[in-house]
Order: sequence, then structure tokens, then C-alpha cells
Amino acid sequence: MIALLTLDCSLSEKAHIIDAIERVGLRAHLDRLEGRERIGAPGAPAELARSLATFSGVADVLPQENAYALVARSGGELPENGVRVGPAVFGGTEIVVSAGPCAVETAAQIEETAQIVAAAGARLLRGGAFKPRTSPYSFQGLGEEGLELLARAGAATGLPVVTEVVSPAEVEVVAEHADMLQVGARNMQNFSLLRAVGERGRPVLLKRGMMSTIEELLLAAEYVVDAGNPDVVLCERGIRSFDRATRNTFDVTAIPLLKRETHLPVIADPSHGCGVRELVPHVARAAIAAGADGLMIEVHPRPDEALSDGPQSLTPQGFRELMASLDPIARSVGRRMG
Amino acid sequence: MIALLTLDCSLSEKAHIIDAIERVGLRAHLDRLEGRERIGAPGAPAELARSLATFSGVADVLPQENAYALVARSGGELPENGVRVGPAVFGGTEIVVSAGPCAVETAAQIEETAQIVAAAGARLLRGGAFKPRTSPYSFQGLGEEGLELLARAGAATGLPVVTEVVSPAEVEVVAEHADMLQVGARNMQNFSLLRAVGERGRPVLLKRGMMSTIEELLLAAEYVVDAGNPDVVLCERGIRSFDRATRNTFDVTAIPLLKRETHLPVIADPSHGCGVRELVPHVARAAIAAGADGLMIEVHPRPDEALSDGPQSLTPQGFRELMASLDPIARSVGRRMG
Amino acid sequence: MIALLTLDCSLSEKAHIIDAIERVGLRAHLDRLEGRERIGAPGAPAELARSLATFSGVADVLPQENAYALVARSGGELPENGVRVGPAVFGGTEIVVSAGPCAVETAAQIEETAQIVAAAGARLLRGGAFKPRTSPYSFQGLGEEGLELLARAGAATGLPVVTEVVSPAEVEVVAEHADMLQVGARNMQNFSLLRAVGERGRPVLLKRGMMSTIEELLLAAEYVVDAGNPDVVLCERGIRSFDRATRNTFDVTAIPLLKRETHLPVIADPSHGCGVRELVPHVARAAIAAGADGLMIEVHPRPDEALSDGPQSLTPQGFRELMASLDPIARSVGRRMG
Amino acid sequence: MIALLTLDCSLSEKAHIIDAIERVGLRAHLDRLEGRERIGAPGAPAELARSLATFSGVADVLPQENAYALVARSGGELPENGVRVGPAVFGGTEIVVSAGPCAVETAAQIEETAQIVAAAGARLLRGGAFKPRTSPYSFQGLGEEGLELLARAGAATGLPVVTEVVSPAEVEVVAEHADMLQVGARNMQNFSLLRAVGERGRPVLLKRGMMSTIEELLLAAEYVVDAGNPDVVLCERGIRSFDRATRNTFDVTAIPLLKRETHLPVIADPSHGCGVRELVPHVARAAIAAGADGLMIEVHPRPDEALSDGPQSLTPQGFRELMASLDPIARSVGRRMG
Repeated sequence: MIALLTLDCSLSEKAHIIDAIERVGLRAHLDRLEGRERIGAPGAPAELARSLATFSGVADVLPQENAYALVARSGGELPENGVRVGPAVFGGTEIVVSAGPCAVETAAQIEETAQIVAAAGARLLRGGAFKPRTSPYSFQGLGEEGLELLARAGAATGLPVVTEVVSPAEVEVVAEHADMLQVGARNMQNFSLLRAVGERGRPVLLKRGMMSTIEELLLAAEYVVDAGNPDVVLCERGIRSFDRATRNTFDVTAIPLLKRETHLPVIADPSHGCGVRELVPHVARAAIAAGADGLMIEVHPRPDEALSDGPQSLTPQGFRELMASLDPIARSVGRRMG
Repeated sequence: MIALLTLDCSLSEKAHIIDAIERVGLRAHLDRLEGRERIGAPGAPAELARSLATFSGVADVLPQENAYALVARSGGELPENGVRVGPAVFGGTEIVVSAGPCAVETAAQIEETAQIVAAAGARLLRGGAFKPRTSPYSFQGLGEEGLELLARAGAATGLPVVTEVVSPAEVEVVAEHADMLQVGARNMQNFSLLRAVGERGRPVLLKRGMMSTIEELLLAAEYVVDAGNPDVVLCERGIRSFDRATRNTFDVTAIPLLKRETHLPVIADPSHGCGVRELVPHVARAAIAAGADGLMIEVHPRPDEALSDGPQSLTPQGFRELMASLDPIARSVGRRMG
Repeated sequence: MIALLTLDCSLSEKAHIIDAIERVGLRAHLDRLEGRERIGAPGAPAELARSLATFSGVADVLPQENAYALVARSGGELPENGVRVGPAVFGGTEIVVSAGPCAVETAAQIEETAQIVAAAGARLLRGGAFKPRTSPYSFQGLGEEGLELLARAGAATGLPVVTEVVSPAEVEVVAEHADMLQVGARNMQNFSLLRAVGERGRPVLLKRGMMSTIEELLLAAEYVVDAGNPDVVLCERGIRSFDRATRNTFDVTAIPLLKRETHLPVIADPSHGCGVRELVPHVARAAIAAGADGLMIEVHPRPDEALSDGPQSLTPQGFRELMASLDPIARSVGRRMG
Repeated sequence: MIALLTLDCSLSEKAHIIDAIERVGLRAHLDRLEGRERIGAPGAPAELARSLATFSGVADVLPQENAYALVARSGGELPENGVRVGPAVFGGTEIVVSAGPCAVETAAQIEETAQIVAAAGARLLRGGAFKPRTSPYSFQGLGEEGLELLARAGAATGLPVVTEVVSPAEVEVVAEHADMLQVGARNMQNFSLLRAVGERGRPVLLKRGMMSTIEELLLAAEYVVDAGNPDVVLCERGIRSFDRATRNTFDVTAIPLLKRETHLPVIADPSHGCGVRELVPHVARAAIAAGADGLMIEVHPRPDEALSDGPQSLTPQGFRELMASLDPIARSVGRRMG
């Protein structure tokens, strides 16, 4: 439910409206759209809507068009200038590429990779320290030590860093080292984690679950924004389909569809999206052509020695070639590379 | 890797073997299969296997047949008498039915339901206190108050209770009130949570993720057992497919397939499996005929008033009729109702 | 659109109504439901409905509730006594089992199998002569020679035979030899074939496509009935999902769902449904418990030598054991084996 | 199996080899790759391969690397200059766009559309005359009359025409009017139809089934080529996944994957791929960026009046804008628009 306010709605009238909403256990969001102030109350029952329509200061009460009121394109809390992570801005004219290894393995590995991707034009350094692995016996990441190595490599190259957080208990330690917190596909509906990163207040990279609908992704983002953090970037990374010729089925249509539904920036992860090194550049180019605001690419100095995701990691040379190929495509859809 | 020990392997030889395994950062599991002692080291590299084959006290070193060594049918740590939850035993001759509302709503509601399901033959009382909900604006459960109401209703009827835990931080409070900890479908790959319930040591009901393969489910169970808790019951609750005529696609074949792969008990949740009240009894009967060790059924005294999952909850009368229909099917596959 | 007729509607009034329908290129179906005559005109536009409402002899014009008016449970053209194939009746109290090899290979093989399955209680003999194969280089069946061998084996054992027809051009030759025409999963939306078997007038076994929704299956059946053939039996045989641990995902819920939606009999093919010999009996029992009217089972005297589908074919002994296990389950849901 | 011939292999030696292959019921294909003659015998058993290796004139016998030997990138029968349809060439430097209405409805409609799409740069005119429709009551196309209208509109604008054929019986009449025969998604495994278009000898546009793997698509193409017709163009048109936010899930990765596996040209149908008019241009651009050799786009002069697929048809203006946007993207991947 969204209550449109009269132009002369007083502060005490606003407080009265907000109070009526919060008294029934709902959250009230005051914002402004096209010069008009509004108070949103997601999830408000019909009786409350009818009641509020009679309040002084309320011009009209609109049904909420969708369940993800805060992240919807028509919604409020718009990060007017995109989502900023250090000098990078997701959602502006420039395409923002995050790159780095699947996992931080050693100081030398992450430092070498950072220099390679920075030189090739990446704007963020990625690297996993806490790795969610299907098997308990797979390499689980270096943990806090990995965070430190990642942060140091980022600082040395001037790149902000993005890394995954897998549990509410680790949000604080990750936020101390990272500029952007990634919530991975397997945790897209880990609602405790969504709330925790929402409350912490660092930009969040939210990956689509491998079997999540577009609506579920937007509702997951709504959890983060509802918890107080409007700086969310969405990421299409492939869904699970019947066809296992590739690791996942990259849903390229999700990009323009999300851009139509939400004001949040949308990036693509072609590395997980297809899972095959030689296909990654093709999918990356397709994502830019489809309107993505950025890319997240796995790069490893020596993919064959990678402790995880080697088969889908680009070589340094492969990454440089990909980056060189992107600008003409970006320009043909009205964007540009940094 | 599994090292078969010689019959006269001494304690110091065993310690030597275990030490060699743990020195490279792996876990060693000592168990006994068919009268023969073995030491398993899941994830051991080939070099270690070659080395151990030369150790005194080692008769043979077998490659690990699968990645879920601890829960595999040929694996160790077998709960010989099934998984016990109070007086109920999952995996014995008797089919164990857990029943109750999707969510604990009020003291009266959960007490009334407990009496209904106990009278009809349920062996556990289910009810959600911490609810993982797709939308932040849906009813999220009563939290700790719900746990207390559930525990009280269970005590009054003599039924042990099972309820979902959604975050590592809440494992302790849930374990204080519940006899069995449920890990829900959306959290099947929440590895922090799997480890936390593994370390806590209450029987665990692990639901298959809606997008998870059989192997991924077994690996998730492996996380719990590897963390020290062998008492895991698996639950098929429907997967997501292209067909949305029903809420999920109940994968009945998963039941005999899991029973072939693992020694863990396997139950079915037909309520989520199909999501339509009038189809639930048919799917429940199919699951028993396919070899399930138990059922989990949503029952609500007045489904139309339920705060969540009303459309798939059975009425008290519907539940009684279902329970009455199950015994002949159970007996025709060599089981019986309690 | 369905026009309810007045009780005194005259023959010439009926002719006038039917004429108005057929003049715009639609088909008119006259039937009787609960003592009331009706004329259905599936697909009629709203203008025609409005026009017909003013006709003499028309009491009321109802919108068509669904797109599969002829096969819907509330629809007309009900085969009152089920679908008869020789002495077997699909849709009665008795569970009807069709069994035989995937493909007819030699006279000896089909005769031996026929005797085995007849002795074990099968009511129809199945066997493929025209095989739709994914690869052009796989065994494609014996064609007309296979039909003759199959018919001869059926006659020798008194079993009617069912076999697949893959092209409109072969409907006639198959119908000359077979008692029931099977339309396979890959051809469920081969609309030319559906019309051809609809016009030919032999009972049809219509298998659900591996990618087809329940509604699409019902609409495919509607093609056959609309072409003049009401004797259609539906068959759930597994759908394609993300999980490839089994050949297909057997959708057991489709059985009660179809039974609710349509008056057509519904059987199950657990052999294709799971594709693994040792799982077939479990899935077969589940299907009966879920309310199936029959089963179709692949049996081969020596599965290891089968030219196709050996891994999912039961041995003679396995088939006998399965058949022996079914009667108690059938009786527990109010049915019985023959 | 592929037998590499010696450079001096005589005609009688070749005949001897071919005879040995055909005597066991297999087909022999003689071709030349990189200056070397070879005889392929897809599906040959190992014994035959061993035997042939001893034949005079055989230099070496290679195992067949995959089951789709004729269409595999390493296979023979390569259409060296792409697939020609009138003046258009699929698989060359130029991106080939086919456009037109879903269905031919009237002479005026198809003529108007032909002029629009020709003026905007389309190279082929598409339009359905025989429409495979899920419901028997949906508009089924104008049949032969539609073919004539389509052919006339094509002739008037100089565009070759492509249209769907749905049954072997209609291959001849369609081939008389059309320059390219389309086999639709629902018929991708209609093997009788594949053989019929293979024997007829017109270029074939083969659409991927909505639930077909890449391998199944290649094997379907293999049927056509094996029947004698090497001029096959593959088309990705979206697969069915769990997500129904769009009509289908356009599998953009299939494009580079197919290009790696086969020498056949690969085009994209973004209209069916996403099914939503405003998303079509984004998906079209993504397909070109991913390496597609062409596009097939639904265009209707007045989409709101279309008898089928209106919601996914571009308006004339929308099509012109899309075409204008494609050339820079094509050039950035080394191609160009015509």
C-alpha cells in the first residue's frame, strides 16, 4: 500500500500516518517520487488502506503493485547515482567489471591476479575467502587470512574488493575487510544473512539462486533494503535447467527483465553462468549487449592449478582479450567501458 | 579413502594411522563394518593412500567410492537402530508420522492441533516458530515464544517436537525446546547451519532443496555427520520443475534411490510436495508404497484461517482419514503404522 | 462455449444451432449431462455466444470452463464404461497391466515374453515395432515385420497388443495389427498424428511428453477426441527435470491431478519414469497407491541382450515378483488386480 | 567409425569397402576432409572397424568421436560456403535476418509485412501456413492458401521464404512454395518428418525443442543430413525452465556451444526465446554478440490484431529500430549486417 500525501501535508499529519502503520506491526517508508511525497507500507492489509484513506493529509491510497515495493522501479529509496563502491559506480554509464580468482589461495596468487586485472581495466577485485562448497571435503577457503590477503592486494592496486559472506556471524569480519559484501546463489534465500547484510550497511552484491525466479530474487533484495541498506546490486549467474552441457543455463533475458522491474543495477557472472572457459567471453559480450551494468569474471594466473573453478577461469591473456572486445559492444548500447 | 585394518591391528598402530591422516589436515573416522575395523579419510589424496598402504596394521586401502563416505550405505557410523527421537524411531519397521501446523500461531491453535494429531496416530508434533519466508512482509513466525508454545503442546500430548532452525545463531535456543531440528529446503546448502546442527547433537531432519540433486542432498547430510552428528533423517519434499500445476514436483523415485545410496532414514513431505490439500493423501500413500520411513504432514484445525500454507494443510478429519488409509499400504511393503 | 438446450428443444431448432456454429468453421458437439442436452462449441468467439443466446431452443449459454472441454471431468462424450481393449477395461475397478519388451526383436523373443507376462497376470502385450530413437544410428525397430510378430504373440496368448505409431502414414498399418495405438512422449504434440489416430478409431494410449504440462497433455487428448475418438488412455512416464540421477523424474502427483481434471483413465509407465530396473517396482507400487488405473512395464527375457532399454527392463522373475506385490496395494485404495 | 583412405585407393577398393559396410545394414558416406578421402560409417561396431583396418585401400580406421558424425565440426559433408537460400547465405560474414508474422493471415497482411521487413533489411520472409497449436481450437493457419500468399509476397519483394512443415505428408506441397523448410520445436524429434525433409532436399531450418539438450538437437540434425540433405541451419529459440516470468528461457550459451560442436550455421529466435515484445531487441542483440549467424524475428503490422503470438511480435517501427541497432554489435564480433 502506498499513501500519496497532499501537497500541504504537515509534519504532525505525517507522524500520525506513520504511527497508524507502525502500530499494526508494519514498517512505514517515507519517500518522494516525481515531486510528490508518499508513505509506503508494504504488506498493509486492506482494512488499514481503507482507514488511511480517511486520514487528514492523505490524498489517495494506492494498492501496492507488487510485493517488492522498495526495489520496484516505481518504488522509493532510489540510489539516485547508482551504487558506489569506492571509485566505481554500478548503474551509471560505465560498465563495471569485477575480476579475480574464485578463491584467494596465497598472497602471491591474489597479488599477481590483482595487478593483472587492474591493468586490464577491472574496477573491483573479487576473491573468495569463505567458500560455500557442496562437499565438506572440498577446499573451504582461507577464511579471515584470505580476507586480509584480498584487502592487501586491493589496496596495492587501488581496487575496492568484493567477497562472499556465508553466515550472519561473519558479516562483521568480512565487512571490516571488504568494500562490497557478496551473498552467493546458495544463500539467496538465507533470510538471516540477508537481514544481517542489510543491517550492516556495506554495498551488497546479491546473486540469483540457481533455481530462483525473478520475483524471488527481487524479494530477496527487498529483505536487504527493508533492513536498511539500499545499496544492492543484482547478479544473474545462470540457473539450473535440464541441460547439463554447461554448468548452468545463463538466463540472458533476466537482465532486461530485471532492469524493467527494478531500479537496482544488474550485472552478470558469465563464469558461473556457463562454466566453460572458452564460452565465457561469448556470454560476457551477450550480457553487455543485453544491457548489463557490469560483469563479474573469474581470472586465475594459472587456471590449471586453481583450487576451485579452474575450468571456468580465464587466463590473464584471455581476460585482456575479453576486456579489449567489450568497449565497441558497450558503446553500441549507449554505454562505455571505464 | 578407506583403510581396512588387520585383525590384530594394535591401538598404537591405529593412532599412528590416524595421526598420518590428521597431519595433512584431514579428518579420520574409525568404525567397523561387518566385523572389520576401518579408518575412513574422506578426501584423502592418492599419495596419502599409497603411503598408508605400507603402514603396519593396514590390510588394504580402498579408494573412496563416493564423496559422501559417511552417509553412504557402505559407510560407517551407522545408527544401528535407526534415528531415535523420544519414543519414535525413524528407520525401523514402523512408519513414523510427524504432523502439525505449518506455523505455531497461538497456544490454543497448537494445543488443539497436537491433540488431534496425537489421537490420530502421529508420533511427532511439527510446527514452525522461525519461518523462512520468500517475502519480508509475510508472517515470519512467533520466534522463541512459538518454540515455548510448541514444546508445551508436545509435552501435554507426549509427542516429541520437530521445528525448523534457520540460522546458526538460533541453533541453541531451538535445541533447548525441540527434540529434532529441521533444516529446511532453502537452507539445505547453508553450510554454516549444517555444521552448527552437526556440532549441537540433536537429531536432524534435513529437507532436500527444491533445486538439489540426490548427490547434493547426501553431501549436505555428510556435512552434518562429519561435524559429529550421525542422527540425520532425510526428507523428500518436492523439487522445482517446469510444471507449475502443483507447487512442486514430488520426486517419488528419490525415496528408493536414497534408500539404496544411504543408510539414513528417508521420509516424505507430501504437503509441500504437491501443495494442494486434496492431492496430499494420494502422494502420501504413494510415498509409503515407495518405501518411505515416515511422513511429515501439515494439519491445521481451520486451514482457511492459517497464517501460512493453508491451501496445503489437511483438516483434522482429512488427517484422520489419511492415517486410517495408510496401514494396509505399509503392511503390503513389509512395514506397519505405529 | 456450451449452449444448454431447453427441455422442449426441437430437432429443427438443434439443427439450426449446430448450423450456426459450423458456419463459422467450428465443430458442434451434442451431448447430455445430468439429463440435460447441451451443444458444445469449443473455441467459439464471444459474438457467437451472444448470438446463440437469442436462438429459439437455447435456455442458456455458458462460457467454456476450460480449453479441454471434451476430456474435462465435467465434459461430455464420457466413455461410460471406461476404455475397452479386447477383454481389458481401463478405468474400471481392475488395475490393467500392459507388459512386454521395449522393442520386438525376434519371433522367439516376443513369444517367450508374451507367455511370461500373460502367466504373471498382464492384460495387454506391449512391444515396439516402429521405434523413435534419438540417434539415426540406433536400432529403429523391425517395422511391419515387428507388427506381425507382435500380433501373432498376442493371439497365441490371448492378449490384446499395444504398440507405438510414429507417423500419420503408418497409422493404418499399425491399426491393422494392433488393438491399441500408442502415441509416444516425443509425439505428444505431433498434431497431425493426434488427428490421424483420432480419425482411425482404435483405442489410443497417449503418453505425456517429457516437457509437457498437465494442461498440454489434456489438450493433446482433446485433439484425439475432437477428431472423433473418445477412447483415450493417458500415461504418466516421467518428465525431464534438472536431476539426472534417474532417466526422468516420475511425476506421481500427475496421477491424482489428472484423475481430478479428466474422466479419461490414467496409467503409469515406471520403466521410463525412472529408467533403473531396481527402482521400477517401487515406482510401480507408488503409482498404484496414487490411484493409477494401470501400469505399462518393460519386461525382457534377457535384459542384458536387449537392443534397447535393457537397463530399465525387468527380468521375468522381477516382473512376477512385482505383480505379486501389487494386489494388496490395489485393494488398499479400493481397486484390485485382474 | 571413419576409414581414412590411402591416397592411391582405387575405385574398386572403395566399392569393396562400401559394400562391406552396407552388407551389415549401415550407411557409408564418402567425403573428403583437408584433401583426404574418407568413408564414414556411423554406428559401426568395433568388429567391423577391426575388419576394415585390414582392407586394401584403408590407411587407418578412426573411432567415431561422437554420435553426430556428419554434423560434427570435424565431420565431413561440410557445406563449404554456408547454407544458401536464394541470395542469402547462412554462415558467412553477413548476419541473415528472417522476419515476418507468426502466421500468414491475409494477402494484405503478408504483403504489407513483406515490404516492411524487406525495407528494413531482412533477407528472408517468414510466415506460418501450417501452425502447430497446443489447442485444437486455436487458429491452425491457412494451409496451402497461406503458402501461396507467402510465396507471392516473397516474390514481390525479392525475399526467399521460410515456413514450417508439420507432417511428412505436407513436405512436398510446402517445398513447392517455400525456399526453406522449417521444422519447429515441437517436431524436433519427429523423426519421420526429419527424414522426409532430409530426402526432399530444400534447406532446412531446424529449431531446438523446448526441452532438448544440445546433443539431441545435433542428433536431430544428423537425421536430416543422414537422409541426404546437408543444408541445415540450427535455431536456438528458448528452452523450458522452472521460471515462467518469460515464455521460455533463451539459452544464449547454446550459440557458442553449438558453433564449437558443429559446422552448421546457428541462428536465434528471440521472439519465442523470451515471448515479450519489449525484451526481444535486448535478446536479439545478445544473440548477435554471442556469435549467432542470423536472427528470426516475428513482426506484425498491428500486433494487437495478430491471430497468434501478438504479444511477442515487433511493430514495424520496433523492427526498424532493432535492425538499425545491430550493425555495430555485428561489427564488434567480426560480422556485419547485410
